Amino acid sequence: MVILVLNCGSSSIKYQVIEMSEGADSLLAKGLVERIGLENGVLTHKPTGKEPVKTVTDIPDHTVGIDLIIKAITHPESGVVKTLEEIDAVGHRVVHGGEQFKESALIDKAVMDMVEGCVDLAPLHIPANLKGIYAIEKLLPGVPQVANFDTAFHQTMPAKAFLYGIPRRYYDEYRVRAYGFHGTSHRYVAEQAAKMVGLDINNSKIVTCHIGNGGSVTAVLNGKSVDTSMGLTPVDGLMMGTRCGSIDPGVLNFIHTKEGKSMEEIWNLINKESGVYGLSGGHSSDMRDIQAGALAGNEVVAVAEEAYFYRIRKFIGSYAAAMGGIDLVVFTGGVGENGPEMREYVCKDLEFMGIEFDADANRGVKGQDKVLSKPESKVKVVVMGTNEELVIATDTYNIVSKLNK
Amino acid sequence: MVILVLNCGSSSIKYQVIEMSEGADSLLAKGLVERIGLENGVLTHKPTGKEPVKTVTDIPDHTVGIDLIIKAITHPESGVVKTLEEIDAVGHRVVHGGEQFKESALIDKAVMDMVEGCVDLAPLHIPANLKGIYAIEKLLPGVPQVANFDTAFHQTMPAKAFLYGIPRRYYDEYRVRAYGFHGTSHRYVAEQAAKMVGLDINNSKIVTCHIGNGGSVTAVLNGKSVDTSMGLTPVDGLMMGTRCGSIDPGVLNFIHTKEGKSMEEIWNLINKESGVYGLSGGHSSDMRDIQAGALAGNEVVAVAEEAYFYRIRKFIGSYAAAMGGIDLVVFTGGVGENGPEMREYVCKDLEFMGIEFDADANRGVKGQDKVLSKPESKVKVVVMGTNEELVIATDTYNIVSKLNK
Repeated sequence: MVILVLNCGSSSIKYQVIEMSEGADSLLAKGLVERIGLENGVLTHKPTGKEPVKTVTDIPDHTVGIDLIIKAITHPESGVVKTLEEIDAVGHRVVHGGEQFKESALIDKAVMDMVEGCVDLAPLHIPANLKGIYAIEKLLPGVPQVANFDTAFHQTMPAKAFLYGIPRRYYDEYRVRAYGFHGTSHRYVAEQAAKMVGLDINNSKIVTCHIGNGGSVTAVLNGKSVDTSMGLTPVDGLMMGTRCGSIDPGVLNFIHTKEGKSMEEIWNLINKESGVYGLSGGHSSDMRDIQAGALAGNEVVAVAEEAYFYRIRKFIGSYAAAMGGIDLVVFTGGVGENGPEMREYVCKDLEFMGIEFDADANRGVKGQDKVLSKPESKVKVVVMGTNEELVIATDTYNIVSKLNK
Repeated sequence: MVILVLNCGSSSIKYQVIEMSEGADSLLAKGLVERIGLENGVLTHKPTGKEPVKTVTDIPDHTVGIDLIIKAITHPESGVVKTLEEIDAVGHRVVHGGEQFKESALIDKAVMDMVEGCVDLAPLHIPANLKGIYAIEKLLPGVPQVANFDTAFHQTMPAKAFLYGIPRRYYDEYRVRAYGFHGTSHRYVAEQAAKMVGLDINNSKIVTCHIGNGGSVTAVLNGKSVDTSMGLTPVDGLMMGTRCGSIDPGVLNFIHTKEGKSMEEIWNLINKESGVYGLSGGHSSDMRDIQAGALAGNEVVAVAEEAYFYRIRKFIGSYAAAMGGIDLVVFTGGVGENGPEMREYVCKDLEFMGIEFDADANRGVKGQDKVLSKPESKVKVVVMGTNEELVIATDTYNIVSKLNK
């Protein structure tokens, strides 16, 4: 079964074409459409085993963007399938599934209505996800589509973890609560890392750290998410590339009072101009630049880096307390996979909770799946690449396979 | 040395009269002025060993309130000193000392200017504290006054802990950072509890939990605060009686967008209508009522209680990770001292970090200093009454004693 996996953002579309069969998968192509709605849109198409192809053209909307993707996939030279008809199913990443979606779902009218009902919760992201779904309906009519929700894995969180300390009516009326994000990634690495170290996921306490430009930490108890650092929105929890993470709401009130900024301006500030980027005085939102700046002796950058690391460490401790201990800590995401310094800062001197971190094994490890704890460590530490597209393709395969029976 | 300790709020004044000498202290009286600026103000004066006296009269301002206190203290029958002249010094609780005050300070013009410079950071509280100082200048001219700052103990926090993930200029220009509160209480119980279990405070890892209507948790490393749950303002961190505690800033943005509430309205909402009070659907901000409601089977109240407990537990874990372990956990404050159910919820099943909680020893313990961990527990757990007034009197005594030499 050939599956097109789409991740539609407001001005970009990431995609992969994956051939799935029972117990096996093969990546046929991946790529990226950028600058939708702007001048000089770009498609970068990377067919496996062939040269990448770059196309620059105006891409006014998502339908045109997806049409370009389909043309690239079916192109006589750079394509990976011969005709449109070979695309058996499409899997979409949908950023928010509210409380309705606890797992991936075959898209039909009822599901679309429910997704649209979540727009209030993610007003910037869901409309883009919906555009992708509508474009496929138009371009590949009749091809089954599956929605995979970034929030679904966290729907097992108990109320004590997802409720905020605000008037109860906000939950009752609007479903204001913590949802968490990166669920597909947390689920994937928890399962894979448990396998890697021979841990029964159904009888385990795992903390997964997905640390990229955005970042979140999740407590996974017996395979189920029981707490996570992002909340109603992805601005909460860890300090991130440009997002503030957990912050005293009094800070927002102070900025409003002192500088007369509106909530809209403050919202933009804490999403786009904050995090390590803001705290480093605008040095960079990229942790590689931050590290270089810190190494070069820039004190402001160095303290931004340490504050960023420190919060990850504290979340691990808090989830250890939440679950009554940990068996396994997993690092993934751009910084998680490629930041040995971060991993060492976060894991050193935690022997009190059973972590014997192997600093030598960790040194220089980038983009590699590896155990980073000493053999005698009660708690295992693993670095592992995530693969959300494969999870989406797998969920799509499983749902669509049943459909055809 | 007879010391008057004052804690001036916007419409109330708490006071104690304490006789201090080298190594000894004796409470002569304590009391409370309420409803300043409202009709029918009330003074409740409790002289040690005598009957309490209640006076109802209009109390238009703090000067009148403090004048009433002085009259009560020097009253021929219910008084505890014969004349005004016997009051040797006055110690004030001041809620915010910014970055200037790392310890208590003798009040002079320069100190007053610096305290006034902190008004932006605590616009509701500092003006009331200042009123108390000015009233004493007028009523007891020449009597030395000392300011004890709620933030001072936390001034040893490292930058990684006190900086927020927002543009650096907010710290550079306005000193927007986490300050923490309840410092005097955290300092007192850390020192006392360490003594109680025979721990050298200069070589120790302590987590102090001051849980009252407001609440905060502090990591005390070698006697110094290295992290605390309140931030720029006392709304951050734990869920409290009516304050939200840590919350996704996206929730504030959601409420603003959905209901058109202004920042001022939202600030009021998260300070006055939130916390367990709000989350329990308005049941109560008092944990005794919350517990009764939960026991009576009210599910909404029960989950508010659990969410409140759960956050305390997570902070203990996060500070254990921050310090690389814990030697001692201390509970104090109204709920900390009188909430055995809270203490059990927070401390049970934490053997992974060396806490062997003695649920039997804890059961029913209210208002009593006691060790709550099993004898073999690596980490000790202690419940202990706080005494901020005694710390203020002690600091005042030490500063004023030197002055007279």
